[in-house]
Amino acid sequence: MPSTAYQVSAPFTRDDYGARMARAVNAAVEVGLAGVIITPGPDLVWLTGYRPHINERLTMLVLSPDQEPTLLVPLLERGDAEEAPGTALTSIVDWMDGSDPYEAARPFLRPDGQFGISDSAWAMHIIGLEQMLPGLSYRALTDCMPMLRAVKDVSELARLEAAGAAVDSVYDEIAGSRFSGRRETDVAADLASLMQQHGHEQVDFTVVGSGPNGANPHHGAGERVIKKGDTVVLDFGGLMFGYGSDTTRTVSVGEARAEVRDVHEVVRQAQQAAVNVVRPGVTCQDIDRTARKVISEAGYGDCFTHRTGHGIGVTTHEPPYIVEGEGQRLVPGMCFSIEPGIYLGGRFGVRIEDIVTVTENGVRRLNNTNRDLRIVE
Amino acid sequence: MPSTAYQVSAPFTRDDYGARMARAVNAAVEVGLAGVIITPGPDLVWLTGYRPHINERLTMLVLSPDQEPTLLVPLLERGDAEEAPGTALTSIVDWMDGSDPYEAARPFLRPDGQFGISDSAWAMHIIGLEQMLPGLSYRALTDCMPMLRAVKDVSELARLEAAGAAVDSVYDEIAGSRFSGRRETDVAADLASLMQQHGHEQVDFTVVGSGPNGANPHHGAGERVIKKGDTVVLDFGGLMFGYGSDTTRTVSVGEARAEVRDVHEVVRQAQQAAVNVVRPGVTCQDIDRTARKVISEAGYGDCFTHRTGHGIGVTTHEPPYIVEGEGQRLVPGMCFSIEPGIYLGGRFGVRIEDIVTVTENGVRRLNNTNRDLRIVE
Repeated sequence: MPSTAYQVSAPFTRDDYGARMARAVNAAVEVGLAGVIITPGPDLVWLTGYRPHINERLTMLVLSPDQEPTLLVPLLERGDAEEAPGTALTSIVDWMDGSDPYEAARPFLRPDGQFGISDSAWAMHIIGLEQMLPGLSYRALTDCMPMLRAVKDVSELARLEAAGAAVDSVYDEIAGSRFSGRRETDVAADLASLMQQHGHEQVDFTVVGSGPNGANPHHGAGERVIKKGDTVVLDFGGLMFGYGSDTTRTVSVGEARAEVRDVHEVVRQAQQAAVNVVRPGVTCQDIDRTARKVISEAGYGDCFTHRTGHGIGVTTHEPPYIVEGEGQRLVPGMCFSIEPGIYLGGRFGVRIEDIVTVTENGVRRLNNTNRDLRIVE
Repeated sequence: MPSTAYQVSAPFTRDDYGARMARAVNAAVEVGLAGVIITPGPDLVWLTGYRPHINERLTMLVLSPDQEPTLLVPLLERGDAEEAPGTALTSIVDWMDGSDPYEAARPFLRPDGQFGISDSAWAMHIIGLEQMLPGLSYRALTDCMPMLRAVKDVSELARLEAAGAAVDSVYDEIAGSRFSGRRETDVAADLASLMQQHGHEQVDFTVVGSGPNGANPHHGAGERVIKKGDTVVLDFGGLMFGYGSDTTRTVSVGEARAEVRDVHEVVRQAQQAAVNVVRPGVTCQDIDRTARKVISEAGYGDCFTHRTGHGIGVTTHEPPYIVEGEGQRLVPGMCFSIEPGIYLGGRFGVRIEDIVTVTENGVRRLNNTNRDLRIVE
């Protein structure tokens, strides 16, 4: 199926970016910040569409209620910065190699107050700013404004739905292909190729965890040759139209043993139970607890060693995190994964994952392939 | 030519990693630090061979004279961490989703003193550590120990030489291929494919700047169709055996105009002059000044808008930076690029780049293709 089968609305406009910048400033003011400092990465992509590849040279967008949005860039990046769709709304200021970038940043900051800063801003730069303006303090954006990007608008949801539909097609195709006798890396290469065929511009991960490798939840894909009787965890995702996909299904190569079927059914029920509780007002940790309860009651509590899920948007892993201790309440438009698993060290693992979005009165899944234990060749 | 044509010595051993950790501790003590905090990225790869892909969950190696090396990892990454070649020399401590990673880090730090921290450590994590231990302060590793990875040992040099030889072969092949009538992205795809054929496991960049696009020093490759009379800047590099390559040549599609030939000759002389001054004891800025002087005297000073070069090792851009203001003196074993350029906005650009290494009494180039203006089809 060609990628044109997935339709999304027109590219984001300047107004889209302007609305996001305004939202960021308002959110900053609400939590008592003087403003926010955005460095290259997903926050900057979301706010301006600008994707610089260089981080060692200081690049930062400063948003505050006192001034127009200001984008500080290395001189040699100015041309690229000007071409990004959202930067026309900013005042672009450049600095040249050999000059002090933190001195160049000073006029757009304040001598005191607190700024939010991108989680992934380099320590080198925050230390440089601290030396230049010792009166300023910082909070990580995820800590003080965790939900800034979490609630998706209609255009963003359309992209996430398209990305979800694409990886669903990938799963259906891969499940119809041969596993037995092939290396995990062969299947992983097929997954990557299929994702690209189905319109993904970026492949982020292609986990193929066969047999005992499936019991390591972050195993990638190795040289192990898949054989009859193996359970295989398939977890893959990437970016399409700039938005993320992420889905997991666990298959059995040939008929599954009773234990595998039982464990798979526990995970399926845990995942379903967790999806069932999603609606506005429920907390993230409620979802984690719901999935964990099902697995614990089945006697596998110690074998579910990771959080239940994570948000998704312009990246494949971002807030909200579906984890114990996260009291954030759900809001319509939030999108995240629900992916409980059971890992039996040295033997096999099972995980089932869908992206879901919170609706006005419940939940909608963005992944919709069959969740039963599929028997493959 | 198959990738096996490039031979390197055996994989790095535990002793190699142990020696690097000892070197890091000694360097930290020398500059008055209590220790260093290494987060995922090139420093961690260099010290342990461990390449985690997740940064949002705190992963850090703590090196200090008071204790054995300690690697803090998320529980679900423990298996991968244990498999890395250098981590057997560390005490691995894990933390689980839902617990406080900064609390887990506390026993391995001190309540006061100054730690060096990886440049690219996430701001989120340094802020988390600052809240947990307000008496600690931090310096960026590049700032306080910039030359930690800069001096390469024999095994590292062998890898850099192999990577250099590989991209030299790539240049010779691409220069014999057709440019006229093809898009920049077509040539860029050929470059990427050739780099992989010649043994690169990672392609970092494939710049094809034709005509006016060549005047933007950080143009990648676009849809522009290359035509007769164009000047084309080719700048490409990546990783081979874990070490970087980076070379630039500028070609002319058909015979070049007199102005192009003149500008190319100025850049060639600037690059040669800069290479000629490299020897132990010379400062980085001396090299930059030498290249800049040649270009300024030819009347193009304003058209050389970037630094003259950058170090290379487990990454393709790292200290030492060859730039005004960098007083670091050269030491045998350092490896960096020398890449002056002239950019005539809206018209064309010329850049010539080789990786060089400082020897006991001079310099050796790791790129050795012809530097004359090559005429291509």
